[in-house]
Parts: sequence; structure tokens; C-alpha cells
Amino acid sequence: MTPRPLLFACALALLPFAPQADAAGKYRSPKDILDASPASDWRALDPTRTLYLELDTGRVVIELAPQFAPEHVANIKTLAHEKFWDGTSIYRAQDNFVVQFGDAEGEDPAKAKSLGSAKTHLPAEFHRASAGLKFDPLPDSDGWAKQVGFVDGFPVGSDGAGKTWLAHCYGTLGAGRNNADDSSIGAELYVTIGQSPRQLDDNITVVGRVVKGMELLSVIKRGPDPMGFYADPAQRTPIKSIRLASEVPADQRTPLQVLRTDSQTFRDATEARRNRVDDFYKRPARHIDLCNVPVPVRAMNE
Amino acid sequence: MTPRPLLFACALALLPFAPQADAAGKYRSPKDILDASPASDWRALDPTRTLYLELDTGRVVIELAPQFAPEHVANIKTLAHEKFWDGTSIYRAQDNFVVQFGDAEGEDPAKAKSLGSAKTHLPAEFHRASAGLKFDPLPDSDGWAKQVGFVDGFPVGSDGAGKTWLAHCYGTLGAGRNNADDSSIGAELYVTIGQSPRQLDDNITVVGRVVKGMELLSVIKRGPDPMGFYADPAQRTPIKSIRLASEVPADQRTPLQVLRTDSQTFRDATEARRNRVDDFYKRPARHIDLCNVPVPVRAMNE
Repeated sequence: MTPRPLLFACALALLPFAPQADAAGKYRSPKDILDASPASDWRALDPTRTLYLELDTGRVVIELAPQFAPEHVANIKTLAHEKFWDGTSIYRAQDNFVVQFGDAEGEDPAKAKSLGSAKTHLPAEFHRASAGLKFDPLPDSDGWAKQVGFVDGFPVGSDGAGKTWLAHCYGTLGAGRNNADDSSIGAELYVTIGQSPRQLDDNITVVGRVVKGMELLSVIKRGPDPMGFYADPAQRTPIKSIRLASEVPADQRTPLQVLRTDSQTFRDATEARRNRVDDFYKRPARHIDLCNVPVPVRAMNE
Repeated sequence: MTPRPLLFACALALLPFAPQADAAGKYRSPKDILDASPASDWRALDPTRTLYLELDTGRVVIELAPQFAPEHVANIKTLAHEKFWDGTSIYRAQDNFVVQFGDAEGEDPAKAKSLGSAKTHLPAEFHRASAGLKFDPLPDSDGWAKQVGFVDGFPVGSDGAGKTWLAHCYGTLGAGRNNADDSSIGAELYVTIGQSPRQLDDNITVVGRVVKGMELLSVIKRGPDPMGFYADPAQRTPIKSIRLASEVPADQRTPLQVLRTDSQTFRDATEARRNRVDDFYKRPARHIDLCNVPVPVRAMNE
């Protein structure tokens, strides 16, 4: 019997890390590039803006974006400090779109959990002034924004006229709202789990992104009711707690490093993905979409 | 206590179906547009090119694309007819990328299942001639291809110079291969479950797409080993069977209709998504990416 193909296992070894030529003409894969990266190209997650979402299946690590949504992030920190989410649930999972979590009874004044000292009204924080941001552009065209690139590890879009916003990619954390633009307070949150819903960009307040543990959210059984809700509370996924990392004992934290998106290593690794020249790819794309660019994360001591 | 926002429930009711203006100036959502669609804008799935992938959790319905990959589709039909996949497994699930299935032991000549009368070598079918295809273009820019649009319900890219290929969107079914372009035979298949990996376009043979049941594949627990494989066979997801719908008794089929992508209804619904003008969206994108356009599917008698 003929051995069956390796099912592009080789290819997939390359998918996360495709090649780029070095000075000697040898192709360097993103993995090669990362392996050779100086320690200074990595930054530790700041525990004062890192959230741990604790599920029965494990911990989801979230990096908050106070530079884009200061009011929402401050409110989220208050809610975490006061243990608002403990005992709440992921009460919605819509395939190829979002999981959503918080107080499933939040709409019912008779049943809603107290918000404690958190604010009950916040301004919309859909975008911010581009001024003051260190913006590292992607060279690629994008139909959703005049310019796209990265700021402090976050994928962003910009109108090229002074406004910048966090883009909706896989793992983006946003603040659910009603129709009014200022109807979110950060108590009800969603994470994108499918094709990037970029139509939401600059239409809702994005507050962070998942840096570790997406595979715990993406496998949650989709809700049977419209838009992925679960009418039956027993079907919801319990949230044990959400805590700010700085409020968790140091020995219980998850020490992670994120590649700086303003580093040469990040630029080189991204370029190596744009132009995959290896044994698998027959036609390099010479392009990459914003939401196809991973921001590498590693354990602190790797 | 103030009622908590509805968590963009209203918004999400609109997300699948956003508005477009009718002659009277009233906005029409995609749902309105679909509800008003003539029966002739829908086509029944052809059972001779429809596969049923049966899992313990239910049935995944796949539409094959013989117009793009005739040799692979013919081989897949042979394999299904001879029950090749019965008792095999989904042996890989890599987050934000693919689930992959077939004979987990296919690489080991001593353990591999017989391929029966299926062919053991096929030509690469990465693309085909554009001539002879009815191509319905999207107006939007795309960094991955000169032109993008739809052919017979499938998202496609084209080089504008005579070649057209099936695009990798959420739910795309492809034939795993090794480094050689002609190393796939359709026995090992993958389905994309995350952000569209368009870099694979025209680099691998795409054979179809999932039209129903993605929520059964997308929630499969991700494999713990590199690239999402499961070294432990007990962690794999059993495949009960894969059958061609035409070889399943008529009363056991899943009768589905797909909106014709060359219909005015499809064009109008897509346009309504490109320009969302409703109570939720504050800034319509005036754009849509190929892989953000859903191809509506409904039960036969809706």
C-alpha cells in the first residue's frame, strides 16, 4: 500500500512560521526569526492591565487596552476588583461570530446583579485620536480602513485623518452595547471566535484581546436559541471568576511575554508570512490581511 | 437598579441581515430581502454532489465542487461509496485554523486502511480556467486576488488573466497534501474553522464547502499536540460515516436550498451588508470582505 500523504503536516509546520531570506540568501522562517530575536523585542504583560477569566476548563488571559478605552477599562477593573463576574456565565455562543458573557439576568432589574461601585454610564470609546500613538503600519491594502497596522500589540485601523480604532480580529474583546453608542459599561463582554467581523470596527467599544486560552472559548457549544443564546441556564458555561492579574498572588499568575509589534523581529516575521517561499507554497500571496498576522506570545522564561 | 444594556442583541439581530433602501426609501434588511425572494432564486442541493459527514453529535452537510476539482471529487465519491471513512476520525483540530479528518494511520503502510478502488495519485487542482464559469464579482478590493466573487455558491478568487480558484473561507473543505502539489487524493480532508487562511488559495486543492453543521466541527476540542494533532487516539472524534446524499435513502436526507449567488436577491442582500444603515451601526463600512459574505441556506420547505 502506498503511504498516504502527510496531510500537509509539513505545510502546517510552516504555516505558523514561513520563510524570509537572510543576508546569505537563506530563507528564514518566522520561527527562525523569532528564535533569533533579542530579549528586548519582547515585553512582559503588565499585570495591572491583564485579566484572568477562569473557567472550569482553564484560564483565559486577556490584555486590556486602556490607551483606547480608558473609561471602559477602568470600569472593568472596578468590576473585577469587586468580583462582579464570579458566578456569572458565558450565556451566548454564536458560531463564526462571538461568545458573550456577564450577567445573563442583567436586563431584568429584579434579577440583575449589583454593579457595586462601577459606573452605570460611560461615553462611547469607539476610536481615539491617532496623535500620541506609535503606529506600525502594514503595507497591505485593506477594504475596511484607510490604514491598518499595530499599536502596542493590538491590530488597529485608521481613517488616515486623525482617528484610530481597535480592529475586530479573532480574539478581540469588546463591550456589548444596545443601539445607543454610549450604552456599554463593560459589564457584558464578547470575544470574536470566527471570521473577523470588521464591520463592527469603530462601531463599538473594544477593550482588549485574548492573548492565551482562545481554544477554551472557541470550543464552547453553540447556543441553540437565536443568535446563539441559551434560554436554559444549565447550558451556559459557568464563569468561576474574573480577576485583574495584579490582584492575584504572584505565584498564581501566568507569566507571559508578547512580541513588541514595533520591533524588527515582528516586522521580519510578518514579512516572512506575506511572502512564503518554501517547499509547500507554490504561489506566495505577497499579501497578508491584518487579522491574519499573529502577535506571538510566549511563556516568560522561554 | 438600572437595566443593563441588551448586549447588542438588537444589533446582532441586524448583523446577519442589515438594511438596504427600497424604492420608497425604506431600508430593507437582508432578512427582508430574503423573505421577499422568489422561489426561483433558490436551488436545491444536488444529492449527487452532496456529502453527509456523520458524527455522534449530528450531520455535517457538504457541497462538493466538481466544476473546480473534478478528479478529487470523483475520488471522494468513490471513497464515500466504498465507505472508506466509516470508523475513521477527526484526528486534528488546530485553533483558528482547521479540523482535519480521515485515516489517522494513513501514513503508516502497515496500518493504513485500504483505499479500495480509489485512485492513489491525482493531478493538483488548485485552480481552473475562468472560461466557462459564471462569475459574479464583488465590487470590493481584496489583497489576495485581483478579483473576488462567487461561482455557483462558492467564494472564488481570480487572477483576472484566465485562472479562477476556490477561496479559503470559514467552512471551506480542502484536500490535505504533502509538499508535492500533486500529493493529495481527497482521502484526508480539512475544514477551515477560524479566520480565513487565504494564503492557501491556489496552493492546495479545494473540493467543497460546509453548508450546514459547521457548529459541530468548530467546537471540537483542540488537539494538545503540535498543530492540533491528538497522539492519543481516544481524544479523536469518531466519524460514523461519510456518504454521498444520493446513496442515502431519500427519507433520510437533509433537504436544503441554497440561495443562488447569481440572483438579484443575493446581490441585494450582500449590498445591504456592505452598507448597514440601521439603528445600531454608526459608521457603515461601505465594504465587505469575500469571506464575510454568507451564502444563505434554508430547509427545503421554508
